Amino acid sequence: MLKFHLITLFPEACEAYLSASILGRARSDKKMSVSYQNPRAFVDLPKDKKKNEFSYRKVDERPYGGGPGMVMMALPVVKAVKKSLARAKGKTAVIWFQPDAKAFDNKEADKLLKFDDVVLVCGRYEGIDERAKKMLKTLGTLKTYSVGEAVYTGGELPAMAIVDAVTRRIPGVLGKDESVEERRVASHASYTRPEVITFGTKKYKVPPILLSGHAAKIEEWRKKGK
Amino acid sequence: MLKFHLITLFPEACEAYLSASILGRARSDKKMSVSYQNPRAFVDLPKDKKKNEFSYRKVDERPYGGGPGMVMMALPVVKAVKKSLARAKGKTAVIWFQPDAKAFDNKEADKLLKFDDVVLVCGRYEGIDERAKKMLKTLGTLKTYSVGEAVYTGGELPAMAIVDAVTRRIPGVLGKDESVEERRVASHASYTRPEVITFGTKKYKVPPILLSGHAAKIEEWRKKGK
Repeated sequence: MLKFHLITLFPEACEAYLSASILGRARSDKKMSVSYQNPRAFVDLPKDKKKNEFSYRKVDERPYGGGPGMVMMALPVVKAVKKSLARAKGKTAVIWFQPDAKAFDNKEADKLLKFDDVVLVCGRYEGIDERAKKMLKTLGTLKTYSVGEAVYTGGELPAMAIVDAVTRRIPGVLGKDESVEERRVASHASYTRPEVITFGTKKYKVPPILLSGHAAKIEEWRKKGK
Repeated sequence: MLKFHLITLFPEACEAYLSASILGRARSDKKMSVSYQNPRAFVDLPKDKKKNEFSYRKVDERPYGGGPGMVMMALPVVKAVKKSLARAKGKTAVIWFQPDAKAFDNKEADKLLKFDDVVLVCGRYEGIDERAKKMLKTLGTLKTYSVGEAVYTGGELPAMAIVDAVTRRIPGVLGKDESVEERRVASHASYTRPEVITFGTKKYKVPPILLSGHAAKIEEWRKKGK
């Protein structure tokens, strides 16, 4: 079973998405699992704080050399990854997000299927101290990816994207009726019931070819990518 | 205030992410809002069902022309969008996801900032009946995007990615200390305290240039994209 581990300051923000629908079913069917480690758990409570509030545990600091924002410290992140991998026995991959890295695609999703434990390191703020990357390389295969071309508030979205894209490719996760091979690459246009829809003053019809019953011609039409 | 509307069968799967951290703060600061419409609410309960279970309301059907999986019907989706836009007064955009569409990037995020209402249409299964797209064009500006290069189980992830990427660019959402202009494009490598980290048998040091205090040289080093 493929085990995903998210290193994140916001586990509850990810858990709802990762436990709904197809992903939730995949988890209860033991096709994959998701667990979390919060870097805050690997930071000591400051001495001047009496109440043990999780949020007192500081995980970020100002960047060396100046610049805006805060940078996540290396050690809390690395310790969280280490903890995630403590019981890992098979092939492990640690994923690091970086805007100029290789775009995560279906091919990369298939590569991750071959691992037993995949740790997704989610940065926040202005990123994570770069030394964390070097340290993580000592713990297992380190892969760097980018997901999409916009900048997000953190690595949680890219991490959820990877869990999602990989999970739907695990054999048996999609019903035998559903397709992993992407028909949509050839034609994204699908049509379903009813045959005619009236909306406003107009009627919207299904392309007649799809009602012809002529499988070869339908295939050809779809390949044209209409 | 920018109002996002998600058309989704799984609102609760998105809400946790969209109410955490920076996004949650942006919502309570009234910098933006998020609301949901579930296409199931626009489908009648089948006559043979006595109990009013939401899940009885069928939103998908088999595709015309054959093929695997189920396709979401056009009308429940279009009606949900219409409901979202019922009170919209200013500039509205409806977003449709399509794997071969323009990649959503920071430039497109800036364009969306100029709208008052942005509706994100999240498909599931093998997509939405293509006629929905034509109908939606009659309701406002329709924009088609792709987010990332892998295939996901639905449009929810791309939709959350867009809400996230756009929101962090709304003036005042990131602290004045934080940067929207992406320093990381030039250099993704940040370093923070402590100066020396011991991990395993090795010592990891901050690049000396960052401790030099020489702003111009630091800038130059960062531009090289180390």
